Amino acid sequence: MAAKKRQQYIIGVDLGGTNIVVGAMSADGEQHLAVRSAPTSAELGAEGVADRIVGLIEEVILDTMEIKRASRKDFLGVGIGAPGPLDRENGLVIVAPNLGWRNFPLRDRIGERLDLPATLDNDANCATVGEWWQGAARGGTNVIGMTIGTGIGGGLILDGKLFHGSSDVAGEIGHTTIDLNGRHCKCGNYGCLEAYASGPAIATRAREVLVREETASLLPSMVGGKLDSITAETVYKAAQQGDAVANEIVRDTARYLGAGIANLLNIINADVVVVAGGVTQAGDALFTPLNAEVRRRAFRRAVDSTRIVPGELPGTAGVVGAVATFKMQHLGAL
Amino acid sequence: MAAKKRQQYIIGVDLGGTNIVVGAMSADGEQHLAVRSAPTSAELGAEGVADRIVGLIEEVILDTMEIKRASRKDFLGVGIGAPGPLDRENGLVIVAPNLGWRNFPLRDRIGERLDLPATLDNDANCATVGEWWQGAARGGTNVIGMTIGTGIGGGLILDGKLFHGSSDVAGEIGHTTIDLNGRHCKCGNYGCLEAYASGPAIATRAREVLVREETASLLPSMVGGKLDSITAETVYKAAQQGDAVANEIVRDTARYLGAGIANLLNIINADVVVVAGGVTQAGDALFTPLNAEVRRRAFRRAVDSTRIVPGELPGTAGVVGAVATFKMQHLGAL
Repeated sequence: MAAKKRQQYIIGVDLGGTNIVVGAMSADGEQHLAVRSAPTSAELGAEGVADRIVGLIEEVILDTMEIKRASRKDFLGVGIGAPGPLDRENGLVIVAPNLGWRNFPLRDRIGERLDLPATLDNDANCATVGEWWQGAARGGTNVIGMTIGTGIGGGLILDGKLFHGSSDVAGEIGHTTIDLNGRHCKCGNYGCLEAYASGPAIATRAREVLVREETASLLPSMVGGKLDSITAETVYKAAQQGDAVANEIVRDTARYLGAGIANLLNIINADVVVVAGGVTQAGDALFTPLNAEVRRRAFRRAVDSTRIVPGELPGTAGVVGAVATFKMQHLGAL
Repeated sequence: MAAKKRQQYIIGVDLGGTNIVVGAMSADGEQHLAVRSAPTSAELGAEGVADRIVGLIEEVILDTMEIKRASRKDFLGVGIGAPGPLDRENGLVIVAPNLGWRNFPLRDRIGERLDLPATLDNDANCATVGEWWQGAARGGTNVIGMTIGTGIGGGLILDGKLFHGSSDVAGEIGHTTIDLNGRHCKCGNYGCLEAYASGPAIATRAREVLVREETASLLPSMVGGKLDSITAETVYKAAQQGDAVANEIVRDTARYLGAGIANLLNIINADVVVVAGGVTQAGDALFTPLNAEVRRRAFRRAVDSTRIVPGELPGTAGVVGAVATFKMQHLGAL
């Protein structure tokens, strides 16, 4: 038998509009080691945010070296998940509206500063791969990942491989039209799923009902009467307390998501759909009507061969997936 | 150098609700040889239709033997394209509403009768593969194929391979919701693309306008006043003659198809979209507003990396693709 190989490590970076999360994992994925996070502080500009990421990575490397008595050469590299559209081949963030970036060479900036190989992939792709590698979509062959937060991001595993499409845009599930003449979306289109079922859209729909109808609801009192302070979380909490308005909003959310997922099932015929993000806090109040809506809309054979599940890695799917995409891009296999 | 190999042949079968088309091609795809077709005559029942297919194949084999001085052992096998849902692994047509079939073992029935290997795939998949191998989508890596006729069928080539999904349902593009509360579709869902943009849906929308509005239009006179006789073809012809109602219907069709294609581009990020079927008769009157609608709705990067083109193999894409799927399934490569 060969001598026992030294353990090696990979760093994962999840760059969001609000926070940066950085973690280290053993290269085999079995150990989750140090994790550090910090506010993104987009106002620092692209170079400033890159500095911050490098700083967090240095801390994570030091933590890991201490915990595992590792040396710096045991680190194989850094996988970075960032908001897209991206140019993966050249390691660029083409546009990141929440960060104000344009054509920023994030991959090489990080890699050069650390003198480590680095890879770049879309944040929603990373979250999907994380759930596929170690979370709710383990064992799936065709996986649809949806992360519902400020927006609705998506990733696709097809025939056992992360699918990027022809120019790294694939999986933009949030920007599929479910209502031709519907609500205006930030992307410019009308009737996008995101315009109905993202966190802010859920809050907006709740406010609209409260303003339009003089219905008794717990919601206003939960935000001290300031309707503008209602968030999706407020709605989930009120729904759990049996509030009728909040429950209607959650049911409608299930209906919108159900229509969007039904479309994806008829197109992709996935065996797993992972729904992650704040919306999973709504629990069965969301998932029960969501499953019913999907069954009503999609082909029976597509519905019967899938499972729709909440994410199992809240907060870490992005980092785990960033490590996984580094393995796939740089080492050629997961 | 090796002795010149004997030319080999593959039979392709395109089984539709109305017609069966059977053709022979050289295994390298370079020669299109005998083609025969006959009405499907679904009233014969599954066994009767299978007999008819076998009879057509026998004729095509004899024709090819005569043309090419081939012998029976030069035929490698038969690729069959049939309406789905299918169980490819077991060679079954699970349900074919237009044929009245349930769990019919079409592949083995044909293969055993001819003593030749046979494969089965979805008709819309075959049409897409046909256009990819020898038609409008040549060279594409990620291809969306749409065939618009009585229904809207679809097929997907992803990362250079025909994509089937987890239970052979993938690519059901016609049954994606574009209007949550929209028209009822034969599939049971509401607001499917097919309910707006299939041939019969186009005719229905034209009739609705004529009944609702007392607008001057060429359409009634083109069908001797019998509005029920209006078909999609009538609409395209009237549009070409400058009829305002028909042009409105064609523009609306472009809008519906544009929304459906925009959804697919944001999900799949294809480099080619092939639109085939009768609808292509509408020409630029359709494709110009369709492209505009796609550009309005989909991500710029997805739009900029694709081309939306009419099919180049009207009538034969299904047979060519059936031959191609035989090669992929039975010989392992195209």
